[in-house]
Amino acid sequence: MVGIKFMKNEKPDYTFVHFELDNAVSSEILSSIRPLEIDPTKGVVLSGRGPIWLYCYLVHHYHPTKFVAVYDPRICGAVVVESHTNKHKVGEVIRLEMDS
Amino acid sequence: MVGIKFMKNEKPDYTFVHFELDNAVSSEILSSIRPLEIDPTKGVVLSGRGPIWLYCYLVHHYHPTKFVAVYDPRICGAVVVESHTNKHKVGEVIRLEMDS
Repeated sequence: MVGIKFMKNEKPDYTFVHFELDNAVSSEILSSIRPLEIDPTKGVVLSGRGPIWLYCYLVHHYHPTKFVAVYDPRICGAVVVESHTNKHKVGEVIRLEMDS
Repeated sequence: MVGIKFMKNEKPDYTFVHFELDNAVSSEILSSIRPLEIDPTKGVVLSGRGPIWLYCYLVHHYHPTKFVAVYDPRICGAVVVESHTNKHKVGEVIRLEMDS
């Protein structure tokens, strides 16, 4: 896919999805983007340096999963922005399990 | 509501929703936030200086509307991030109608 690369890392409770943009991408990529398939019975944590509209697109794309959280490097955690499980509330910060 | 103020401006095709944050807000506000009610038969364009997680929350909140777009000042337009109408495609940039 031109302009964007996705990587994922499975955790017990969620899939960590990180993206990297090649360079300045325009919003037209949203019409052809193919985000990674993930297990909808888990949540998803999104991470990467990119524009707000890309995050918003991905949050909507992953709407059918258990919850969606957005990694914010300033708070070293991921903020839950939508949830369909009572294990995680909207606004909650999930501390990420880092690989050793 | 503590920490955030919403304003709206009706346009023929969408409601322009602008937010302003008082100061550095934490993600806990998402548990008590009350976004403005809008006409779901139109789209919504979101605008304001704020964290990605706030935008992601609002995009999900306004999911039942006709389309959701995110204003990006760098491109002087709003990027459609989800759409339930064939009038606007995901990735399209909507040039905003400015008030005179």
